[in-house]
Amino acid sequence: MKKIPAEKTAIVLIEPQNDFLSPGGTMYQYIKEQLAERNVIANLQYLLDNARGKAKIFYVPFYAFKPGFPELKPGGPAYDGLRGIEIDMVADWGKGAWLRGTPGPEIIKELTPHEGDIVVEGKMTLDAFHSTALDYLLRANEIECVAVVGFHTDWCVESTARSAYDKGYRVIVIGDCTATDTQEDQDFCEKWIFPKIGTVTTAKEFLEALV
Amino acid sequence: MKKIPAEKTAIVLIEPQNDFLSPGGTMYQYIKEQLAERNVIANLQYLLDNARGKAKIFYVPFYAFKPGFPELKPGGPAYDGLRGIEIDMVADWGKGAWLRGTPGPEIIKELTPHEGDIVVEGKMTLDAFHSTALDYLLRANEIECVAVVGFHTDWCVESTARSAYDKGYRVIVIGDCTATDTQEDQDFCEKWIFPKIGTVTTAKEFLEALV
Amino acid sequence: MKKIPAEKTAIVLIEPQNDFLSPGGTMYQYIKEQLAERNVIANLQYLLDNARGKAKIFYVPFYAFKPGFPELKPGGPAYDGLRGIEIDMVADWGKGAWLRGTPGPEIIKELTPHEGDIVVEGKMTLDAFHSTALDYLLRANEIECVAVVGFHTDWCVESTARSAYDKGYRVIVIGDCTATDTQEDQDFCEKWIFPKIGTVTTAKEFLEALV
Amino acid sequence: MKKIPAEKTAIVLIEPQNDFLSPGGTMYQYIKEQLAERNVIANLQYLLDNARGKAKIFYVPFYAFKPGFPELKPGGPAYDGLRGIEIDMVADWGKGAWLRGTPGPEIIKELTPHEGDIVVEGKMTLDAFHSTALDYLLRANEIECVAVVGFHTDWCVESTARSAYDKGYRVIVIGDCTATDTQEDQDFCEKWIFPKIGTVTTAKEFLEALV
Repeated sequence: MKKIPAEKTAIVLIEPQNDFLSPGGTMYQYIKEQLAERNVIANLQYLLDNARGKAKIFYVPFYAFKPGFPELKPGGPAYDGLRGIEIDMVADWGKGAWLRGTPGPEIIKELTPHEGDIVVEGKMTLDAFHSTALDYLLRANEIECVAVVGFHTDWCVESTARSAYDKGYRVIVIGDCTATDTQEDQDFCEKWIFPKIGTVTTAKEFLEALV
Repeated sequence: MKKIPAEKTAIVLIEPQNDFLSPGGTMYQYIKEQLAERNVIANLQYLLDNARGKAKIFYVPFYAFKPGFPELKPGGPAYDGLRGIEIDMVADWGKGAWLRGTPGPEIIKELTPHEGDIVVEGKMTLDAFHSTALDYLLRANEIECVAVVGFHTDWCVESTARSAYDKGYRVIVIGDCTATDTQEDQDFCEKWIFPKIGTVTTAKEFLEALV
Repeated sequence: MKKIPAEKTAIVLIEPQNDFLSPGGTMYQYIKEQLAERNVIANLQYLLDNARGKAKIFYVPFYAFKPGFPELKPGGPAYDGLRGIEIDMVADWGKGAWLRGTPGPEIIKELTPHEGDIVVEGKMTLDAFHSTALDYLLRANEIECVAVVGFHTDWCVESTARSAYDKGYRVIVIGDCTATDTQEDQDFCEKWIFPKIGTVTTAKEFLEALV
Repeated sequence: MKKIPAEKTAIVLIEPQNDFLSPGGTMYQYIKEQLAERNVIANLQYLLDNARGKAKIFYVPFYAFKPGFPELKPGGPAYDGLRGIEIDMVADWGKGAWLRGTPGPEIIKELTPHEGDIVVEGKMTLDAFHSTALDYLLRANEIECVAVVGFHTDWCVESTARSAYDKGYRVIVIGDCTATDTQEDQDFCEKWIFPKIGTVTTAKEFLEALV
């Protein structure tokens, strides 16, 4: 793999939150096997622990909705897709994903942000760029290369990676630091989509290339 | 299917151009079987002929690059993905996709825009919204529902459909008016991706629902 | 003034925070005369108190930077303009505008958001649309008309209003609910800029037109 | 003035078209005195002639509307501002600004693009970034510094310059290569707005700093 200039590189970590990653979370049941089989949380810890101080790390958690989801008009266009589906999901701690005041939108303990990491607020869309200051923050930090990791591979990771390519970043997807519900979907993205918008790699290879 | 208000609906036709759809085009060889098996061009003709005068029709062809591709810096970030790959492709009429002055970027005859259709200029990215006035034009026409059709199902159609959902449009993908290189990829999008950002339908069902 | 359909209208309140509006804030000294002379805080209270339950209210406070401003690379492009200037400003509670943990970025008490109001997170740019989910939230709520109020008239209010027009919203600027440092600048915007991207009005007229 | 790295710098020329700049154009009557007094076309020629081969030059002309303006719904939100006003303006060659098939949207002869210049298609909004591939093209060319010139200083030039700062570019406005209807408006922008989003300079100073 070609060398990656650490000073111009960002790791963008998408939605490392309990609703996806912890028992009781609304969507944990669907992804838990892939998380375990592919050792994804440990890979992410390894990646972040070794990249900190070299590449800049941006967390992009999903927005925590207020109880009752007053932010989104019932029956409005957001309800025609994933947002509507997630509002009806059930966690151990109540109904609805990303519910403020519950553990759902909290970042999991294993991946607690460190002092120098940047937490980007307000993500509400599949593409992290569309609903946050991510583009501004990356450019304000003179980032040229974006390494996308997190959840889910074929949803917010993919939307964000596609958009990063469209915005003229050099895109890396660190495959073993992403997960989705099935191996089939993971493979589809890694083999068919990501190689045509950038480079697919592993945490180990990425860290070796980071200089 | 629920009724679709024609006055607030746009058909967004992505890249109906020779490089994809005509013998000799750079990427025709990969998609030609799907086009034939699934009768996609005829489906598009049927869709457009029957929707005109009801829904508004927006063509979004890909930009025609100048010879030598001076618009994109060699080795720059665009080269790390599809744009770089396409520059090296070979058509019957020369090297490079979307080459100005060749038949490659011309809209195919069967789908020639009619008088009242709008042709959106300048698309250079996967997501049609990112590099054109598409969002402005849709909003200027008070469009709320976007029916995406064209090529390729898993690339520009999907990036545009994902983005449309993120931008708060109601999204429809008319499956039999889209195509990509393999049936497997087509199925993946129609079964796994599109139903979670909107509605997947057929030209016939769409036209019946359009009021 | 033409009637304004309340169900499709949003009031977008830009940066009603201590750094601008309260004694001790970094930029209070420059705006305080205009605030007093034109009675702006009281006008905003009157507007919000009477619009609530009719139009939807979106607060867009500026992001609270962490101590030391680690989010922005020193010497990077953000420093070449207002962000750089504000980092060097001094408040009664310390150096730097929008400093997390100080009163600077807190919303002033007189304008505390109510239960049903939506607080949009993460604004870092002049144009509220560029760094937040504002566009997504407005569209998810089927908003077509955006009434912009807040601070400063010629900076974030104007950038947001210009962008709203470009995005195909119908734009209203409620002049007596905006302020900037001088009457000359206020007049320039109200007379020269806003009438060409929408309608300039007052709180009283706006409320009378809202149906 | 600090040195400007030519390889990372773009000159973005906004709307150098007959409707603004030539006798008979819809808006020429308003700007002609400023053009003459401040020698703007000659300054632009001097700038481009001496910057070519060093900085990359991007032309961003306004889109040429089809007769009858079918692209914009009558009474839609675009009509609530400048677009609506311009549709009713009268040129020597007919009614309506930016009318396809008339001299209005053509680039003036004195500023005809040269071989290596890039002409960005499709601009329909005040902010050139919102309706074109400008951001993609700048990033694809690894541009970090954007020098904005053209027309009108307080409209499309300013909207584009504000947006460029928000997108993390380093912004330069070359004042003597911009113009608007009055000296008062020109001064307002040069003294009050542009210095807070970047650097205001002249063609001569810019060229001396470009290395």
